[in-house]
Amino acid sequence: MSSPPAPFTASPSASGSPGALLTEVAEVQEALSSTRLGDASGQPTGTQRAIRWHPPAYDIRVEDIDVPRILHPDDAIVKVKLAALCGSDLHIYRGNGGVKDVHTCGHEFIGEVVALGSSYGSQAGDRPALYSSLKIGHKVVSPFTVNCGECSVCRLGYTARCPEGALFGSPLLDGGQAQYVRVPKAGGTLFDLSDSSTWSSSMAPEERQTALSKLSDRSLLMLADILPTGVFAAVQAINHPKVQPVLTGKPWPLCFSSVPESNNLSILDEDKVFTAGIVGLGPVGVCAAISLLDTLSTRKVPFHIIAVDPNGSRRTKMKAVYDAIDVSGKAGGTFEVLAIDEAKARANEVTKGVGCTAVLEVVGNSSALDFSYTLVRAFGVIVSVGVHGEPPLPFNGRQAYNKNVSLDFGRCPARAMFPPAFDLLVKRQDIFGQVGEPASLIDRIVDFDQAVESYSSFDKGEIGKVIFDPWK
Amino acid sequence: MSSPPAPFTASPSASGSPGALLTEVAEVQEALSSTRLGDASGQPTGTQRAIRWHPPAYDIRVEDIDVPRILHPDDAIVKVKLAALCGSDLHIYRGNGGVKDVHTCGHEFIGEVVALGSSYGSQAGDRPALYSSLKIGHKVVSPFTVNCGECSVCRLGYTARCPEGALFGSPLLDGGQAQYVRVPKAGGTLFDLSDSSTWSSSMAPEERQTALSKLSDRSLLMLADILPTGVFAAVQAINHPKVQPVLTGKPWPLCFSSVPESNNLSILDEDKVFTAGIVGLGPVGVCAAISLLDTLSTRKVPFHIIAVDPNGSRRTKMKAVYDAIDVSGKAGGTFEVLAIDEAKARANEVTKGVGCTAVLEVVGNSSALDFSYTLVRAFGVIVSVGVHGEPPLPFNGRQAYNKNVSLDFGRCPARAMFPPAFDLLVKRQDIFGQVGEPASLIDRIVDFDQAVESYSSFDKGEIGKVIFDPWK
Repeated sequence: MSSPPAPFTASPSASGSPGALLTEVAEVQEALSSTRLGDASGQPTGTQRAIRWHPPAYDIRVEDIDVPRILHPDDAIVKVKLAALCGSDLHIYRGNGGVKDVHTCGHEFIGEVVALGSSYGSQAGDRPALYSSLKIGHKVVSPFTVNCGECSVCRLGYTARCPEGALFGSPLLDGGQAQYVRVPKAGGTLFDLSDSSTWSSSMAPEERQTALSKLSDRSLLMLADILPTGVFAAVQAINHPKVQPVLTGKPWPLCFSSVPESNNLSILDEDKVFTAGIVGLGPVGVCAAISLLDTLSTRKVPFHIIAVDPNGSRRTKMKAVYDAIDVSGKAGGTFEVLAIDEAKARANEVTKGVGCTAVLEVVGNSSALDFSYTLVRAFGVIVSVGVHGEPPLPFNGRQAYNKNVSLDFGRCPARAMFPPAFDLLVKRQDIFGQVGEPASLIDRIVDFDQAVESYSSFDKGEIGKVIFDPWK
Repeated sequence: MSSPPAPFTASPSASGSPGALLTEVAEVQEALSSTRLGDASGQPTGTQRAIRWHPPAYDIRVEDIDVPRILHPDDAIVKVKLAALCGSDLHIYRGNGGVKDVHTCGHEFIGEVVALGSSYGSQAGDRPALYSSLKIGHKVVSPFTVNCGECSVCRLGYTARCPEGALFGSPLLDGGQAQYVRVPKAGGTLFDLSDSSTWSSSMAPEERQTALSKLSDRSLLMLADILPTGVFAAVQAINHPKVQPVLTGKPWPLCFSSVPESNNLSILDEDKVFTAGIVGLGPVGVCAAISLLDTLSTRKVPFHIIAVDPNGSRRTKMKAVYDAIDVSGKAGGTFEVLAIDEAKARANEVTKGVGCTAVLEVVGNSSALDFSYTLVRAFGVIVSVGVHGEPPLPFNGRQAYNKNVSLDFGRCPARAMFPPAFDLLVKRQDIFGQVGEPASLIDRIVDFDQAVESYSSFDKGEIGKVIFDPWK
């Protein structure tokens, strides 16, 4: 749909108010109902199968619903090849998300563009490159949230908090566990896997294209959420000012300046050991561990890492992943996988009673955060990338002051995290490329008939990451 | 006391357990009682005048007490020239600190070394330089907490959390609002103002010595707490990873790597404006503002700053300080001083509804932290350097997640912050060098007879920073 005349001329509302956007959507819907844009543009019509959530909780149904349609000139329709089930889908599944409306589930999907709104093509001008270059037939992977790519928030790379953003698989936006999905602001949101010149990585363009061609769809699907979110956790910890003395070997605050050290203080080798806790070893926790190990090894920083989860099968998976990583990827450190009751004493031993330089909290609840607080050192950093509920935080201001603790909360800007996540995906095909192996993150690929059972087993921690093939 | 034979041979316990330290102190006390170390070494004896706190609250008395004595080989006795009253003294004053024991107040003092324990002198070996170089008669200023300067925590520059540390002016350690004060671990704690070769700054040694010679004692006293604490707030904000896109002009997370930008996102000049809130304009808040302005101007970062306090006289002081700063020190930005009810709307206007890149919370209570949360942008940073109480934090995990907020808590490592604080002190003598002027931080210098009234007026916000002269 890159060439036929557009049936309406509503201009893209990159910086419009929500009110203006709603008016525009209404106009678009009116236009659609009279002109049958879908049919005219080759957009799929009819019905499709989709995994749907019903209130109040634990009620997943596979239903036949209308295929989505272009509702705004910036929309794309993607035919889903694979869609994954994510730990954060469980918030809504369990009825904990404050959600009341039936909707299509899922925020991790990879597929092929089958229809594009009228914003796409040569008339896109200086909008993000994808508005000019994205074509029907291109393979794409989507971050788990929409972002416009044009506002100040997006330009700064804070794409998870774009004011025009929305989470796939929520009442605001049907998700990708379906045969087709509508992607709003697709020119700001999607990664075009058919045209790697539209994004960057640390690889040269040719090398990047070759690497890309070797990656399976299931492996690229990890770029939708879990891999960038894991990298996000590690990047925040590694770049936090409080940990720079350990990484640079210059004491606080001289690590930020050109002021020479005085002869009063001198960092020893033993001070330059990065100690970390990883709390929660679901798929995102494993990705965070891989990313942290990769960065520490690349930068030749000695480390001791304690990875913790109460679930034995998750610990087994984490151990297998660590064993599968080649020696160069884990040189210079120790990595121990422990149950909660063993972890505190061991962290105490390993850090000589000081506590961990950083703790990556990859669960998103009060008890995980509380446990992270017990593990972290004074002047340490807790990075929490999980979705939290509404109970009070498990420590007060006095406790935070007494430990000089830093806390980084929030949702991964997956769109912005693409370059380092892609680089890591290419490096670690031993882990991301497999299915059902001891060291693979993906446990199984199933059809929609197994959706109800898969949600239930995943919720109980009986199985690992599940991918749905909507066409099987 | 740098040469006479030591009356005991207890070795310095740089990394001893608290239990071992207590045993050692007991041994030292026993040694003292039998050998009269004080008299033998020229250590002052007799009584002195001191400002003392009595439980339960609001009970300040000037009393005659024994002069402090060397209790450990690492101790120094300092004859206090000037001692200041600090906002955080009010926690104990008001009975909010959980403190029950009578003690000498004050954690900001400058003075002259009059006695040294047996650790000092040529036998100090490879201990911190001051153990070899500090002499009786040297002028010193002390950070507000003790730190050993030898453990891993100190080597990394996290001096505020040295396991052997203690806060002056608490039941654990008598403070500096007295004629004499005992400084434990003085070789790790003090700044020697008579020998600037023992510390570093961005200035060349000769330039540093010249600058130092021009500074008044009252101005150097600001290095004990309020100036480094203000700098600590600004340094944490400026170096936080989440603000690097604004400062570097490269989007998150490319600001940390050599990966080139794709053609999909491009930061505009308007995105590179650092917007900040400063909540609380007591002396530390003013120092934080001066430090932030200095850094942003030096780095030529455009800025909008909203400085907020409910107290009109504090706002007047902050305005006068800003007016006094030369144009080069505030080039490229706007700085507005507002009451709380005006601030939120104005921050909203200035930041176009996005919120502030960083908020410096320089109060230390729930309402200030809550207000900081309302001011900060998504992906913004709240730096809180105040002493908090024990109520729950004023936002929950869901709110922290929804705003992708980062929080940095804790006590300033004043010992480590000395180099940038000294540099700023030298630069801003227009503000730090004056007394009782509209733009000076120091409101008045009084004698101990005015202590009771000064505490009361300072507590009520009627007067600004007070300095006591114990000999007047």
